[in-house]
Amino acid sequence: MFNVDYEPIGRRGQCPGNQSLLESARQLNVDIVSICGGVGSCNHCKIQIIAGKVSQITLEEEAELSARELQQGYRLACQTFPLSDVKVHVPPESLTALQRTQVEGLEVDVAPEPPVHALEVQLAVPTLDAPMPDDVNLMSALGAPSGTIDFQLQQEFSRNLRDLNWQVSAVLRGSELIAIGAPGTRWVGLAVDIGTTKIAAYLVDMETGRTLASKGQMNPQISYGEDLVSRIVAASKTPAESARLQFLLVDALNHLAADLCAETSQNPRNIVEAVVVGNTAIHHLFLRLPVKQLGLAPYTPAVRAAVNIKTREIGLNFAPGALLHMLPNIAGYVGADHVAMLLATRTAETSKTTLSIDIGTNTEICLNHKGKLTSVSCASGPAFEGAHIKFGMRAAPGAIEHVRLDGDRLEIQTIGAEPPVGICGSGLLDVVAQMRLNGVLDRMGRMSTNHPRVRKENVAEFILAERPGQEPITISQKDVRELQLAKAAIRVGIQALTAAEGLTEQDIEQVIIAGAFGTFIDVSSAITIGMLPPLPLERFIQVGNAAGTGARLALISVSQRAKAGEIALRDGYIELASVPNFQRRFAEATYL
Amino acid sequence: MFNVDYEPIGRRGQCPGNQSLLESARQLNVDIVSICGGVGSCNHCKIQIIAGKVSQITLEEEAELSARELQQGYRLACQTFPLSDVKVHVPPESLTALQRTQVEGLEVDVAPEPPVHALEVQLAVPTLDAPMPDDVNLMSALGAPSGTIDFQLQQEFSRNLRDLNWQVSAVLRGSELIAIGAPGTRWVGLAVDIGTTKIAAYLVDMETGRTLASKGQMNPQISYGEDLVSRIVAASKTPAESARLQFLLVDALNHLAADLCAETSQNPRNIVEAVVVGNTAIHHLFLRLPVKQLGLAPYTPAVRAAVNIKTREIGLNFAPGALLHMLPNIAGYVGADHVAMLLATRTAETSKTTLSIDIGTNTEICLNHKGKLTSVSCASGPAFEGAHIKFGMRAAPGAIEHVRLDGDRLEIQTIGAEPPVGICGSGLLDVVAQMRLNGVLDRMGRMSTNHPRVRKENVAEFILAERPGQEPITISQKDVRELQLAKAAIRVGIQALTAAEGLTEQDIEQVIIAGAFGTFIDVSSAITIGMLPPLPLERFIQVGNAAGTGARLALISVSQRAKAGEIALRDGYIELASVPNFQRRFAEATYL
Repeated sequence: MFNVDYEPIGRRGQCPGNQSLLESARQLNVDIVSICGGVGSCNHCKIQIIAGKVSQITLEEEAELSARELQQGYRLACQTFPLSDVKVHVPPESLTALQRTQVEGLEVDVAPEPPVHALEVQLAVPTLDAPMPDDVNLMSALGAPSGTIDFQLQQEFSRNLRDLNWQVSAVLRGSELIAIGAPGTRWVGLAVDIGTTKIAAYLVDMETGRTLASKGQMNPQISYGEDLVSRIVAASKTPAESARLQFLLVDALNHLAADLCAETSQNPRNIVEAVVVGNTAIHHLFLRLPVKQLGLAPYTPAVRAAVNIKTREIGLNFAPGALLHMLPNIAGYVGADHVAMLLATRTAETSKTTLSIDIGTNTEICLNHKGKLTSVSCASGPAFEGAHIKFGMRAAPGAIEHVRLDGDRLEIQTIGAEPPVGICGSGLLDVVAQMRLNGVLDRMGRMSTNHPRVRKENVAEFILAERPGQEPITISQKDVRELQLAKAAIRVGIQALTAAEGLTEQDIEQVIIAGAFGTFIDVSSAITIGMLPPLPLERFIQVGNAAGTGARLALISVSQRAKAGEIALRDGYIELASVPNFQRRFAEATYL
Repeated sequence: MFNVDYEPIGRRGQCPGNQSLLESARQLNVDIVSICGGVGSCNHCKIQIIAGKVSQITLEEEAELSARELQQGYRLACQTFPLSDVKVHVPPESLTALQRTQVEGLEVDVAPEPPVHALEVQLAVPTLDAPMPDDVNLMSALGAPSGTIDFQLQQEFSRNLRDLNWQVSAVLRGSELIAIGAPGTRWVGLAVDIGTTKIAAYLVDMETGRTLASKGQMNPQISYGEDLVSRIVAASKTPAESARLQFLLVDALNHLAADLCAETSQNPRNIVEAVVVGNTAIHHLFLRLPVKQLGLAPYTPAVRAAVNIKTREIGLNFAPGALLHMLPNIAGYVGADHVAMLLATRTAETSKTTLSIDIGTNTEICLNHKGKLTSVSCASGPAFEGAHIKFGMRAAPGAIEHVRLDGDRLEIQTIGAEPPVGICGSGLLDVVAQMRLNGVLDRMGRMSTNHPRVRKENVAEFILAERPGQEPITISQKDVRELQLAKAAIRVGIQALTAAEGLTEQDIEQVIIAGAFGTFIDVSSAITIGMLPPLPLERFIQVGNAAGTGARLALISVSQRAKAGEIALRDGYIELASVPNFQRRFAEATYL
């Protein structure tokens, strides 16, 4: 029997050596597409082997997969048998049911002030008597004779002008011409929030500011590790590895852009501006900035300032002169996504004492007290994403997402009302809260063995769902401990911020919870287990993907972009590790 | 017998199929290095087959040449036999005697006002209590907290800062940081004049403005054709061809830069600024701008304006953020090299009615009359470079460069006082002038057969040098016709300019002759044959490579660069083909 880990869905289980990975995926409820019935002829059950040894490539696979795919570790799940513990990446197209990723976010009404403007012009046709150079011809027609033309556009535009019969729609960014197209072209922008595990992308009309389409997918870097540290280590090893980590993101964005454009009958060449946000490590990995120093104390970012480069400089295939704007970072573990969240939630503008939290593998928290912004970063870990939890998984069909326990009576709710296959972060919070409320867990998190659903073999386990012919889904004492560590990291961060301002937690007038995970949690469960402070429920607001919204605001409005820059400069950062008595405070915060 | 053409030296001759290209090169006085005695084991007689069929690759060549070289058509001359007419490129390292290329130019004393400035600073070492991001740390130390950092430098600098122990020499271009190095680094710039046939490069100290070293070489694009039209046609065929034509120049510049740096103990990474000039076609080919429309009436340039890009955008490997400035063009056949020449010769500033001429395959002429600048371009053709002339060759050892004829008495002078092997442009001018003065040629250019040195087989030929066992070196009636066409093109251009201003040629107060070829001609010969107007000799000034000097001025001084921009804008351009009665005027100008 070998351990098999199906990523990015996060399902883990066991597979005997004589069982194909397609079979074992089915038993673990990872729904991989298969049309040919597992004989290796349909090319639908394509997976990628990330780590571990598997059986040799079959003739069927040689026929179905390209040399490049085989070299990258792609295999057909029905043809592949484990020879050791393996880690498998299941690409989105091989999954029958897509995972829930959060693209819907906070809607903020902002008048568009786009950084780019389109004009339609008719040019003069050059003759021997007036052989006007193409650049002079075009820039005069645009009324910008002293303007410049993006270099890549210079390499293309002479032919375009002639093909379009000297009549064009031209896009200026300030005094720089960055794209030309046929009259009537709709020019669009791309806003992207790259999370450690998920990517959310939005295609936006640059004139109206309206979002035309949105799409989410997993961060493909997850094949290098759930946590950022393993990616930083990988990228620091060799230039080829750091190029590979960058390529994974750039390629994902090119594909997302192509999909969004296809959906709205656009062409990626019509994308004239992009705004991307992410935490500092993701930001650096995406731009291929040095990350080695991010992984070592004092965790120094290479770059804090906003970055403005041509999208082509990192391989994004948009309009010739399209600009990529990366919002500024604040510190090594408080990045541009946090700035975007603060922008979208108007955290910096409120007069209320406000706490804004983006919960994730890394949780960033900002306190605004009388206009002073202070942020902190907490290593909450990947427990909310299902890692280190026996039946943990991400928010995919069949994940237990809500739990109610009343004495012996247990009610569970799964995503898609499917038969239960595991438990996701919000379900985990619920079950621990319910166990605590029903006395199954004490304040220290110890599980009582008195409850009828608790069984004890090696460790105590609470049975969440029996499954015919399969092991029941349980929450173990070890799982409870993992959650305690995760939630303590967040709580101690909140306490450090209020303490720094001489406040108590009760002084917080408003708590804004952002992020995909934060949208689905039951706030009262989070209060019960002590992850969030015990405040009246009406003080909490759950806003969804606010970082993506912030990216969209910065995309369509130069004032909003300037505001983001001010937020990053105003924000004071506290390094949690340097807070006095951190260890004792952390230990106390683990109590339920 | 096959025709063989040795480029870039321009020697042409015949070779039987059973004679190696090394042997035939020797017979044509192309001095290819050979150490092993022609047995294929020394790798010194490396040549490249540009066109035509040759014998199969031998085992010796497979051993001596790399797969990449073989694929690019490199062969060993001693192992290769012609199977058809062939065109051979002899790389500089395979030639025993280097060709004369012109790098020495006009020296103009200008106070440096460099666009870049270096500062030495000591940074703070980041700690957990003050984990300053690297960009903030560096830019604060430089006193430019709102400045930006070049993107490639952002990708490298974190490691450099640590390697240099937080003490650096940093180069700012305006408010952008473009390079860092060890304290004491000497930061340099590169000025380059890319001619149709020759390249001249200069390494300049960016602080003092002093030229540290200079070097010339042939333009490797010559393997695609002596004239620009054949290169335009090649580049317009496929993107791969245009990339190849660009690569030839970029690669040559990278090598020139490396050689100049090695000579002065610098590193190409210390080159922080580059200025490149060339004619419009070369400018476009170098930047890989579209050239198809340059080859067709109305010969429209894609780009007239000055181009400012990072050197890395076209593959020049200098400092991370080094800028490439290309001076502006004027028209399709009046380019940035002409602007540079006008800048260096101060043509735009003089109050004298001045004619400035840069003689070459294409000759550009500018008239300044009362501050009004007008330019014209003349297709003088490659006769001055030795093409289409039976014994024509470039200015290499053994070329006849000066001729005096007094009745029957003939004196010749060769480059390097070597035995004569051919005749170069200045020699051609001399001999035709001397023949005219001695009545061997009449006004129409007809050769008299009465002179003892004239023989007539198919056409009349004037014998310049007898050679034991070899055909004598001669000037044929056909050669004289070629020269008449070349010189008429120049003269008709001069006349068009004076006519446009309502002047006669006698009103020209000063004639500045720039360019390598122009340096070596005998002005009185040029007047005798009617290439230049009959003005007193003291009105002529021969200044050498003025385009290279103009590039150096624009490199070290922002005011000079601005002046070049003004010259390009002020310069009015006349299209020679649209001048009234052009055909008749041209015919008249062919008279000697």
